[in-house]
Amino acid sequence: MDVEIINTGTELLLGEIVNTNFVYLASKLNQLGFNVLYQSTVGDNRLRMTEVITHALSRADIIITTGGLGPTMGDITKEVTAQVVGRKLILHYDSLNNIRCYFSSLHKEMPENNIRQAMIPEGAIVLNNTCGTAPGVILEDGGKIVINLPGPPVETQAMFDKSVIPYLIERFGMQGVIHSRILHTYNIGESALEEQIKDLVINQSNPTIALYARQGGINIRLTAKAEDIQSANKLIDRTEKQIRNRVGHFIYGVDDETLPGVVGQLLHTKKATISLAESCTGGLTTSMLTDIPGSSAYVKGSIVSYSNDIKINEVGVMPYTLEKYGAVSEQTAVEMAEGMKRRFETSVAVGITGIAGPGGATDVKPVGLVYIAITGYLGTKCHKYNFSGSRTDIKYRSAMTALNLIRNYLLQF
Amino acid sequence: MDVEIINTGTELLLGEIVNTNFVYLASKLNQLGFNVLYQSTVGDNRLRMTEVITHALSRADIIITTGGLGPTMGDITKEVTAQVVGRKLILHYDSLNNIRCYFSSLHKEMPENNIRQAMIPEGAIVLNNTCGTAPGVILEDGGKIVINLPGPPVETQAMFDKSVIPYLIERFGMQGVIHSRILHTYNIGESALEEQIKDLVINQSNPTIALYARQGGINIRLTAKAEDIQSANKLIDRTEKQIRNRVGHFIYGVDDETLPGVVGQLLHTKKATISLAESCTGGLTTSMLTDIPGSSAYVKGSIVSYSNDIKINEVGVMPYTLEKYGAVSEQTAVEMAEGMKRRFETSVAVGITGIAGPGGATDVKPVGLVYIAITGYLGTKCHKYNFSGSRTDIKYRSAMTALNLIRNYLLQF
Repeated sequence: MDVEIINTGTELLLGEIVNTNFVYLASKLNQLGFNVLYQSTVGDNRLRMTEVITHALSRADIIITTGGLGPTMGDITKEVTAQVVGRKLILHYDSLNNIRCYFSSLHKEMPENNIRQAMIPEGAIVLNNTCGTAPGVILEDGGKIVINLPGPPVETQAMFDKSVIPYLIERFGMQGVIHSRILHTYNIGESALEEQIKDLVINQSNPTIALYARQGGINIRLTAKAEDIQSANKLIDRTEKQIRNRVGHFIYGVDDETLPGVVGQLLHTKKATISLAESCTGGLTTSMLTDIPGSSAYVKGSIVSYSNDIKINEVGVMPYTLEKYGAVSEQTAVEMAEGMKRRFETSVAVGITGIAGPGGATDVKPVGLVYIAITGYLGTKCHKYNFSGSRTDIKYRSAMTALNLIRNYLLQF
Repeated sequence: MDVEIINTGTELLLGEIVNTNFVYLASKLNQLGFNVLYQSTVGDNRLRMTEVITHALSRADIIITTGGLGPTMGDITKEVTAQVVGRKLILHYDSLNNIRCYFSSLHKEMPENNIRQAMIPEGAIVLNNTCGTAPGVILEDGGKIVINLPGPPVETQAMFDKSVIPYLIERFGMQGVIHSRILHTYNIGESALEEQIKDLVINQSNPTIALYARQGGINIRLTAKAEDIQSANKLIDRTEKQIRNRVGHFIYGVDDETLPGVVGQLLHTKKATISLAESCTGGLTTSMLTDIPGSSAYVKGSIVSYSNDIKINEVGVMPYTLEKYGAVSEQTAVEMAEGMKRRFETSVAVGITGIAGPGGATDVKPVGLVYIAITGYLGTKCHKYNFSGSRTDIKYRSAMTALNLIRNYLLQF
């Protein structure tokens, strides 16, 4: 069953709001095994909406619209749909009654306008709105189905879950499932990753393998179609294993797992504690680590050492080191990490120093130059990077890279 | 000029990611006076993408696609576009060179795959990608224009701003403008704000006034339609003044101004320095402050004092205080602020302590209880809050509130 979702509303085309309804409906429909092949956005304009719905009927089996069921004159989705499939609108007394009750529950009189919301295309199935006044509508017409849902996300989602899903399952039975699993990688580029698994990408059709870039790394998406979720997972498991055999080293997590979460889990498992001296990242790495519930068990604390004074007095970097090698140097990063470990008495400590830009660069030290040192049971290691991008990009990449270094360090013991 | 935006990528149809590119492009195009009439989403499927682009050419003058310019075999948008308008793809040496340079700046070899990105439709205008490897493309064909932009939002937006806007303006001249100005408020709710300016919202049509909630506060958007930007700004100025007369106290910034940026500007102007002791915010406040270029001039440093040890030994909180009042208390917040000011020798210092949850609550200290103390020229003040939401919500609200307190404190001297 091929689905097209049509989101109506001029505010969408003005770029005033993000279309979250589509994400919600698409992910639910995919889980149910329906193929969402197209999505369109159109404004509250009779001519263009007619064209968009007509075109959708020519290429999809099920069309779901959102928006345009309100009481104002700009709300025309139900009317246009009825016209396209050649139905009259008639007053639906139960809906009118529901709308009246809704207003009286708020101790208000129902405005005249709201009668429009109770006008329903002849022969339609009416969907009750438990969160607002606009009823939804299902129209079956010559093998095609058009479903009109309201626009406010709370109403759209509640009506979809309570009325549309049961309808679709009753009408079409289970479609099997389309199930995805995401493998998150770090420290490998998109094309380098593809080169490693190209033959799998080409030769596999169930699950399919897709690569895409996300802030903080490349994701590998495995999507399987199967009878049920267990069978889908089995298909995915097999391919995941093949992928891990080749690039497992770069994969830090699956689905909802994040790099800070994975690092936190490792610190927890190893009963390790951590502290950080952050210069160019300005506290971002510690903030990411402390986003994780329960992180107070392993994060003892950190110092944001922006000025040299603080590096010397609070972190324990030697004045001589700063003078001879500069604040952005391997030596300083190492003394930051080792100083923290000593002063904060943690099992692992990290020192991050670099030039986030846009100012601060010199002839030999460009913007994006970052040193990250890590110390602990396995001695001290320092890594040098040249990141690119804006100030916040460089901060973010430095923090993510530091987290990935901590992960690799912890995996060694 | 009628525009259709086509967002390509199967991940969109699977409901995996929210389409933020469309919002960005739509709002910019509207500001430039172009009519965005349709938006479509289609997956990385040759047949369906061909149909969608062909259909768009039948109803819009300008078609802008995003996504599918990457180096992998799933990236087909440029190819399909070229096919639809009947152009061959030819190797573009400048682009190939740029891609090579991009990789060598990362000290990496360019993978073979990336050559695909330098294949450009014959006769196309090539758009340089300053944030990634995929060049964009503008194709003029029989009075219609198709523009291919990359998918990662950073790249889409940079290329649109730097290359597409100048092209559109040169090609079509100014279309008249729809211009918006955003006033950012903090510490007042949406309905409370609306009550203060309701009559203006109802009686105004140019500029229109719209309120909407954003993470971190309510925005007031003023949108004017006029011949040119100067006339639009004049209309907006008048209404902004009326609004400021009523709720000016809550407005911290305009358009791109952020709370950390405004605080940074104030610290800079007042020649003040700052340090923070952060407990429940875990470094987030300092990280937000150090997102601002030049912040090393006024941020001396901070301590993330997650454990009591660190609060005592590094920040200077008295053991007696922690024992008697607890780590989450007014007394501790005050000693954190005052301890930082003393040790880091800054003109202003802040102490933040609270329960970000989900664990850590007691009968008398619920999740969301946060104390923020600020000290400086004007003596020490401490504020108590009860925030709601998830752990990261509470961290974010605490950090934003701390920044707003710093702003108000600095405005007083």
